[in-house]
Amino acid sequence: MKIQKIVFGVVICLAFGTFAFAQFQKPEDAIKYRQSVFTVMSNSMGKIGAVVKGEAPYNKDDVAKNAAVIATLSSLPWQAFGPGTEGGKAQSDVWSDNAKFKAASEKMQLAVADLNKAAQSGDLDSVKKTFGAAGGSCKNCHDDFKKK
Amino acid sequence: MKIQKIVFGVVICLAFGTFAFAQFQKPEDAIKYRQSVFTVMSNSMGKIGAVVKGEAPYNKDDVAKNAAVIATLSSLPWQAFGPGTEGGKAQSDVWSDNAKFKAASEKMQLAVADLNKAAQSGDLDSVKKTFGAAGGSCKNCHDDFKKK
Repeated sequence: MKIQKIVFGVVICLAFGTFAFAQFQKPEDAIKYRQSVFTVMSNSMGKIGAVVKGEAPYNKDDVAKNAAVIATLSSLPWQAFGPGTEGGKAQSDVWSDNAKFKAASEKMQLAVADLNKAAQSGDLDSVKKTFGAAGGSCKNCHDDFKKK
Repeated sequence: MKIQKIVFGVVICLAFGTFAFAQFQKPEDAIKYRQSVFTVMSNSMGKIGAVVKGEAPYNKDDVAKNAAVIATLSSLPWQAFGPGTEGGKAQSDVWSDNAKFKAASEKMQLAVADLNKAAQSGDLDSVKKTFGAAGGSCKNCHDDFKKK
């Protein structure tokens, strides 16, 4: 019985790619962590968004820095959505329809990688185009998986 | 009188390097932002720390990734300690002895840049050495500027 539980635990961990939950001592720690990652990403998205909308001047270095922050952080929050970490602003669909959630998370990571590439190149037109797709990937996932 | 206020505001902004407070609509937003940055940094420091202490196996890519997260985030929180954002876990010395706080923040940024360089090189001994200095720079600043 004990071995069955261990095997089950390992299977769950493998299913989530890494030892998703093991690193957080309490579910609240996982929730705090993923919300923190999104808070920082959202701030940098907002700064690039202000440039894209013409509300702030285009400073190549600032946009490149913020895009790098977003790209660097984009792979992090998912490890904190492991089994047993339900709650916070996450809808239960994150766990009940995990394949769809994972697909949405991967779409976002690709979109912000494109944004980062554009931002590092310093071409504002490319930044504008890729920003739209990146913002859309955030919104789509929020619509499906974030509490209103 | 009005012009004096504007001039004062501009001087304050310049003194803090950028328009530190302007980007946050409310002081709580600034506090949430800086705490989020530190939460994410602390998580990655913990993961490298486990490797340094021999509690987790050394995976070069994981350590390199976490060190890059820390280095990328290390320049971010300071913009959220602008005038009028007192509170949270920050001691009032952040504002009353801002030069010391700024020096401590710069020491940390240099230390985590060294850690990142070591982590990208894949040399565990260098990671261990630079991790000690990076962790020390966190602790020193916490001792002086973070509420117990």
